[in-house]
Amino acid sequence: MTYRAPVREHVFILREVLNLDGYADLPGFADAQMDTVEQILDEGGKFAEGVLAPLNAVGDKQGCRWSPDNTVATPDGFKDAYHQMVEAGWPALGSDPAFGGQGLPAVVNVAFSEMTSSANMAFGMYPGLTHGAYSAIREGGTEAQKALYCPKMVSFQWGGTMNLTEPQCGTDLGLIRTKAVANGDGSFRISGQKIWISAGEHDLTENIIHLVLARLEGAPEGVKGISLFIVPKFIPDADGNPGERNTLACVGLEEKMGIHGNATCVMQYDEATGWLLGQENAGLKLMFVMMNEARLGVGVQGLAQGEAAYQAAAAFAKDRLQGRSLTGPKNASGPADPILVHPDVRRMLMDAKAVLEAGRAFLLWTALHGDLAHNSPDEAVRQKASDYMGLMTPVLKAYLTDKGFKICSDAMQVHGGSGFTEHFPASQYLRDCRISLIYEGTNGVQALDLVGRKLASNGGRAVMSFFAELDGFVAENAHDDALKPFVDGLATVKGKLQDGTFWLMQNGLQNPDNAGAASTDYLHLFGLTGLAYMWALMAKAAQARIAGGDKDPFYANKVKVGRYFLDRLLPEADSHLAKLKTGSESMMALDADAF
Amino acid sequence: MTYRAPVREHVFILREVLNLDGYADLPGFADAQMDTVEQILDEGGKFAEGVLAPLNAVGDKQGCRWSPDNTVATPDGFKDAYHQMVEAGWPALGSDPAFGGQGLPAVVNVAFSEMTSSANMAFGMYPGLTHGAYSAIREGGTEAQKALYCPKMVSFQWGGTMNLTEPQCGTDLGLIRTKAVANGDGSFRISGQKIWISAGEHDLTENIIHLVLARLEGAPEGVKGISLFIVPKFIPDADGNPGERNTLACVGLEEKMGIHGNATCVMQYDEATGWLLGQENAGLKLMFVMMNEARLGVGVQGLAQGEAAYQAAAAFAKDRLQGRSLTGPKNASGPADPILVHPDVRRMLMDAKAVLEAGRAFLLWTALHGDLAHNSPDEAVRQKASDYMGLMTPVLKAYLTDKGFKICSDAMQVHGGSGFTEHFPASQYLRDCRISLIYEGTNGVQALDLVGRKLASNGGRAVMSFFAELDGFVAENAHDDALKPFVDGLATVKGKLQDGTFWLMQNGLQNPDNAGAASTDYLHLFGLTGLAYMWALMAKAAQARIAGGDKDPFYANKVKVGRYFLDRLLPEADSHLAKLKTGSESMMALDADAF
Repeated sequence: MTYRAPVREHVFILREVLNLDGYADLPGFADAQMDTVEQILDEGGKFAEGVLAPLNAVGDKQGCRWSPDNTVATPDGFKDAYHQMVEAGWPALGSDPAFGGQGLPAVVNVAFSEMTSSANMAFGMYPGLTHGAYSAIREGGTEAQKALYCPKMVSFQWGGTMNLTEPQCGTDLGLIRTKAVANGDGSFRISGQKIWISAGEHDLTENIIHLVLARLEGAPEGVKGISLFIVPKFIPDADGNPGERNTLACVGLEEKMGIHGNATCVMQYDEATGWLLGQENAGLKLMFVMMNEARLGVGVQGLAQGEAAYQAAAAFAKDRLQGRSLTGPKNASGPADPILVHPDVRRMLMDAKAVLEAGRAFLLWTALHGDLAHNSPDEAVRQKASDYMGLMTPVLKAYLTDKGFKICSDAMQVHGGSGFTEHFPASQYLRDCRISLIYEGTNGVQALDLVGRKLASNGGRAVMSFFAELDGFVAENAHDDALKPFVDGLATVKGKLQDGTFWLMQNGLQNPDNAGAASTDYLHLFGLTGLAYMWALMAKAAQARIAGGDKDPFYANKVKVGRYFLDRLLPEADSHLAKLKTGSESMMALDADAF
Repeated sequence: MTYRAPVREHVFILREVLNLDGYADLPGFADAQMDTVEQILDEGGKFAEGVLAPLNAVGDKQGCRWSPDNTVATPDGFKDAYHQMVEAGWPALGSDPAFGGQGLPAVVNVAFSEMTSSANMAFGMYPGLTHGAYSAIREGGTEAQKALYCPKMVSFQWGGTMNLTEPQCGTDLGLIRTKAVANGDGSFRISGQKIWISAGEHDLTENIIHLVLARLEGAPEGVKGISLFIVPKFIPDADGNPGERNTLACVGLEEKMGIHGNATCVMQYDEATGWLLGQENAGLKLMFVMMNEARLGVGVQGLAQGEAAYQAAAAFAKDRLQGRSLTGPKNASGPADPILVHPDVRRMLMDAKAVLEAGRAFLLWTALHGDLAHNSPDEAVRQKASDYMGLMTPVLKAYLTDKGFKICSDAMQVHGGSGFTEHFPASQYLRDCRISLIYEGTNGVQALDLVGRKLASNGGRAVMSFFAELDGFVAENAHDDALKPFVDGLATVKGKLQDGTFWLMQNGLQNPDNAGAASTDYLHLFGLTGLAYMWALMAKAAQARIAGGDKDPFYANKVKVGRYFLDRLLPEADSHLAKLKTGSESMMALDADAF
């Protein structure tokens, strides 16, 4: 039942599929040669397995405890684990060396954060949010702000949060009411209530830096009148140390289905002192620096919970003796066979492997493009990589969390009745994972972002460039017999995705409800295509090893799981395409009072 | 957020689709004319809405409380509600008049129990289990046993349970170790531990009658050596009143993800006194009387949680203002439109309606066959009805719980962040519903029952008779233009199901793992076909009304939801068929240590 960090999988993808060593000439990559990366991930995996995983159930059972003095205590052991993490320097892995970070490529950090999240999702959110807030300050802050906040957030001495939601306002940020009034000295008084603020208050850091969306007096209505403010819990003194306590407080915790170890706070700002981050009324754009990073991070969480739940289910299936194989006993001397012999149990575990192994590759492939978008000297590479990041972020967020939740639910199913009890970890994985489909923009919002914004931007440049890349791969490998089923599968699903894309272009413009009605099925079709591409890339890398005489079963198994993906997951493409092409008519046919 | 009993839906199905009034000449049906049934369901709906629903969240939050004296207190209010239920005579609805029951057809009881379960699943399990235990005693008990137990279980003065599972033994009942030793006076001493015993101990009834699977000394190994025993908590005295306390106890409660209001007990039997129910070593067959009833009941639970969750989501979607319709403001004077205007929100609600409305019809249609199997004077009708009950039970259990859980998850998604908090009911519905995929035989076990037992029994008579019925409907309605899409959809999916059936017949015999590998996709294809048939029947009934000039939007809406089903759910048939035809090769390709 113990979590085992899948470092072998990460290393295979980074070294053999993405060829990380081929990027040594890019800034930051010189230190990220695979031998080093493997060492880092090995150590990171041990930290996740040994320090974070044992606290996962504790965090779930105990939860965070709010006191009437507005303090929040994290579960037993979190503080110590946090300090170990800070001391080991894990948080700084992907951060800017200018602020004390290690400057490794983001792709390495994604691999590390998957392990953190698998081991303890609620815990992993504390550093995750801090990193996001740091990124926004680094992107939009003045030199003074960066100097003041970034180093302490890179070292994780200080925490960070994002404050968007208010009771009347979630997805529709135009409805924000929190007010900001200028003090005349460059600072502002921030007043309002924010809800569902993850890590809004806790006992892990000496300060917490809140990034708060608010409206300046006289600002335009809607999303064009929203600014972003830095509102520290303790106002830094002249030496940059935590000084006066700001007039903000966590006035309560949300009772939630999962992630009990993370404090989900109701935050009250009573003329709290804050400073503008970036330009007036341009807060949303900057918040989306943080949000896009967070969205990719949520995709990682979905995958990570799926991985942890899969591992628990696989261990259970090998251990639990019940019934006999349909093809004759496989454990004849025992009272029954392990349930792994039953095809329907295999189905659930293989479904999981087929998604997890390729989903991980899809995440790392995308994260590598994030690195290229920032670091490549080639303008064309930067543009394409940046296009891909924009295009894939909603796909990864929604597809991997939908599938991650499905895997968690299947993992519970493999456990049978045990899975429904809280003595086994399946329930926590399922409950924790469920939030990933909702926060940082519900999966429906991701699907709308994909079809309404990402597809169309720059005349469809991003998706056309993705199609061209897939066509290129198919053409290049058309005559590789060992790879044929993968190439054929990819070509087929790519054709369907293209068909769906053209359908959207024609029908979404005509009636935008058609785009909305198609969005989720389109996103899933996109996700499947992404996985098909990853399976083709992985099969190619594995086949090369096999052809070279490598007998490590890792490579043969990789091809086998890929074949299962082609058999058992790819057929879903048809139904997604058929559904989305029916448009919005029957979906919108009922009057509101018929619901 | 309040649950509203869908009596209009029940009445439409019973009166206009199933034509209950046409069965007046059958035993028990004379009192079940639709005017009476409508009154009963109206009253039952009020009971569910007014008495049970308000206790649902209480039960979840408070749970059952075990004390070291081995007593269990149900949540506040459960006792009073239980007594109200007993006084109103609700439990006796479908029970045998010989024991004080009202003798109404089971189909009416299914409609009532759906409402009970939607309002409060954990509560509804207490009477549900009692009814199952009563049925087993009525089926297999001696006259004396029936006289002693049945009346008090029909009135629900006494509760009932089923005791199958032991720590080492769940699905594989051959592994049971609980022992029974004859006392020589016709009674037995029962010793062993049973786990996950729903309603094993509580404070709602003056006695609890446990039906316990155990092994007699010297009984054959495996399932052929299992007997069933009646083991009362209090041994009835000479007057049939609760007498001496038996040596059995609830030694603890299971901590679970949901259904906190139902006591899931660890039961310890220490030479407890029991009496054989039915024949020695034939306990499983009798337990399956109870089990089959329970399986249909679990299908009802899946649907019922889906219904309740759907209702909460629809209310939220009409109430929550966020964003604007893609086709222009629909609530221009408000700050935003209700989220019901967004196609992707509609998608989730329409998916729910398309499954719930036809799933309910499928349940009632099957339950009516259950009545016909017992009560029809025509041997051929009885045989066909009994075949259908056997065939459809695993389909309804697994398909409706899989889909019910999906609906609960979508309902949470419609709620956005609110859904993940425990302030809204979505989390409880999702958590409660999740057990329905597991207990009374996991959904994978249902799928195996379908492909391994039900399909093949009597040379495939049941499924062939179902195909013939569908063909008959298609032929009969082939020229009805208004019905054309429904008839075409049904013909198409029936063709696919038949294709899958033939594939199974050919390939499942060759290699039983092929049957196992296909089972879940085949069951889902079967479920879809069942829904397609129900939609065709409902559309026909609704079209008849519309053609007759009925302007009630209920009928037009019914057709609209049916069209959505054809557009958006039926396409899943293709992928199920494609997947199942790939067989077991890739599914079974990995060695155990590759997991």
